[in-house]
Amino acid sequence: MAEITRIESKLYNVPLKEALYDAQHGLHTHFELIVVSIYLKDGSSGTGYTYTGGRGGTAVQAMIDQDLAPALKGQDGANVEAINEFCEWYIHYVGRGGIASFAISALDIALWDIRCKQAEKPLWQYLRGEAPTCKAYHGGIDLDYTLSQLTQSVRTALDNGFNAVKIKIGKDDFAEDLERIAAVRKEIGDEVPFMVDANYSMTVTNAIESSKAMEPYDIFWFEEPTLPDDFAGFGKIADATKTPLAMGENLHTMLEFSYAFDQSKLSFIQPDASNCLGITGWLKVAEMARFYGVSICSHGMHELHVSLLASQPNSGWLEHHSFPIDEYTIRPLVLEDGLAVAPDDPGIGVQFDWAKLRPYREL
Amino acid sequence: MAEITRIESKLYNVPLKEALYDAQHGLHTHFELIVVSIYLKDGSSGTGYTYTGGRGGTAVQAMIDQDLAPALKGQDGANVEAINEFCEWYIHYVGRGGIASFAISALDIALWDIRCKQAEKPLWQYLRGEAPTCKAYHGGIDLDYTLSQLTQSVRTALDNGFNAVKIKIGKDDFAEDLERIAAVRKEIGDEVPFMVDANYSMTVTNAIESSKAMEPYDIFWFEEPTLPDDFAGFGKIADATKTPLAMGENLHTMLEFSYAFDQSKLSFIQPDASNCLGITGWLKVAEMARFYGVSICSHGMHELHVSLLASQPNSGWLEHHSFPIDEYTIRPLVLEDGLAVAPDDPGIGVQFDWAKLRPYREL
Repeated sequence: MAEITRIESKLYNVPLKEALYDAQHGLHTHFELIVVSIYLKDGSSGTGYTYTGGRGGTAVQAMIDQDLAPALKGQDGANVEAINEFCEWYIHYVGRGGIASFAISALDIALWDIRCKQAEKPLWQYLRGEAPTCKAYHGGIDLDYTLSQLTQSVRTALDNGFNAVKIKIGKDDFAEDLERIAAVRKEIGDEVPFMVDANYSMTVTNAIESSKAMEPYDIFWFEEPTLPDDFAGFGKIADATKTPLAMGENLHTMLEFSYAFDQSKLSFIQPDASNCLGITGWLKVAEMARFYGVSICSHGMHELHVSLLASQPNSGWLEHHSFPIDEYTIRPLVLEDGLAVAPDDPGIGVQFDWAKLRPYREL
Repeated sequence: MAEITRIESKLYNVPLKEALYDAQHGLHTHFELIVVSIYLKDGSSGTGYTYTGGRGGTAVQAMIDQDLAPALKGQDGANVEAINEFCEWYIHYVGRGGIASFAISALDIALWDIRCKQAEKPLWQYLRGEAPTCKAYHGGIDLDYTLSQLTQSVRTALDNGFNAVKIKIGKDDFAEDLERIAAVRKEIGDEVPFMVDANYSMTVTNAIESSKAMEPYDIFWFEEPTLPDDFAGFGKIADATKTPLAMGENLHTMLEFSYAFDQSKLSFIQPDASNCLGITGWLKVAEMARFYGVSICSHGMHELHVSLLASQPNSGWLEHHSFPIDEYTIRPLVLEDGLAVAPDDPGIGVQFDWAKLRPYREL
């Protein structure tokens, strides 16, 4: 048994190169990065992390430092899944999703880093992936881009090696969304997979109308058309339309995912290991996805998800997210022949570039 | 318009007179109290609060101080419902329940305090209640009490003026639960309403068996037999048994409540204004309860809920909770002829005794 002896957290508030806009969260100017290192008695250590769109980071860190870290000291760091479940119950009354899921995720990822290092394997191999690669697309946060900025942006994504792109929709006037969709389809040609994301800005009725109106543009998936909690609402949209549905970034507990699989008639599920109880949670969702015949994708933190997606037999698409966490690591995301390539270093494969992060340290 | 100019929070960690034990949270030694005061430009102010079972308080305070308070400054303090909804969307990505619901609740309650003071009405009257009273029961956290401590404890509750009691169940061996239930029923006689609370410690199957085994003891309600998120599981228990079901303390968003009303076949709903988006959230739940024909009750913070329950036409039972927050106010809960009596001072009727709280200040 290797006891947990110390847990250290750091909070960074990292500015984006440009302010990014979507239909529900409004303007993003920063992302918060909460990094957690766990040290075991045998001298081993690992680093995990979570992130936010700029709000809630201090609460995540407070829950790690004040509630979870003290309770984990002395526990066996090898019991990753048991610790994950312990944490859920330990803060259940103030938990079941929200901040608690972000806090538990960061701790879980740190324990997985230790586990893979001790096994001397990269994450994708520890999980018995067949190859270190997966499909990847670029997800823009681009709702306030002009038409020419938008087409330029998807062109840049293709030039950078991505062979699929996603844009935000959810303008007040859907005619404007349609105009943007048409312009992007024209820019990228007929063959490139093209997704849209409404950030749950539509009612079920609006979403059905919008989905039908988008049909001529061969949309690969329609992401978060309506409220992520409205599991049955997604099912109604799926029943009434042809474009496949996707969601997952806002689901934080296994019960939420089970409702989504059961009721929402999704074609793609997009869990984010930073907020669905870490790698342990993400893998549980992947297992459910296999059971339901849904393609497993990801949201955010592409520098980590590349290893998780590479490990999965029913692997869908890795989102290259517009929060460039990977630019603050020693190995930003690698693309080869249109595929994202998982790192081969033992551990989770995400090693922060501390000097680069330092200027943005908050706590 | 009266702009919000200042928001101040305080965190207290208040020791319980004795350690309290239940089936899922284990031992309680303290409760955390997060008190928030909001000041408006016109000189008015109000105080709200939330509480936890001893974990998560610093995260709640961090979210109030770092995320919500800065965003609320300058907003019109009279727009209570609009501010509640604004907060939900503002921290949606890290929210939808959990810590966010606790933080928003405290702020909402402070704004209601201002609203009622400005109307020069006590809360129950502002809400057009017909009388300042409601039924009340004492809820014990008593799973580790010996049989004689348990019967003594319910006897004390009756002596103190309550005419209904609730005990915890969820022992490893249900035969022990049954023995305790029999002893309590014998102690209080056949006429006193008697509830049990399993703190979601049972599977659906266990809960059905347990409910049937309890039938001879005329249990008034069976609270949280299984996981609060397992909405359909509650429905299965209700279909298979006769004892009415209750839950609500672990539901933190209106969508969660709507799933409970729709699927769980509850007879009693027990929202807690400290974690269901404040008084604004509690009143929305009360409205849903009327629509579904479910009796509206409460969990925790009885010093506040007495006014809310007194205001409701379909009012059920006020829980006198074992966290004695009211003992740290200038008016602990008043009982008259077996009914709880709401305070008549303008505002929410909860005024803290700062001198008494001071020794327990954390942040």
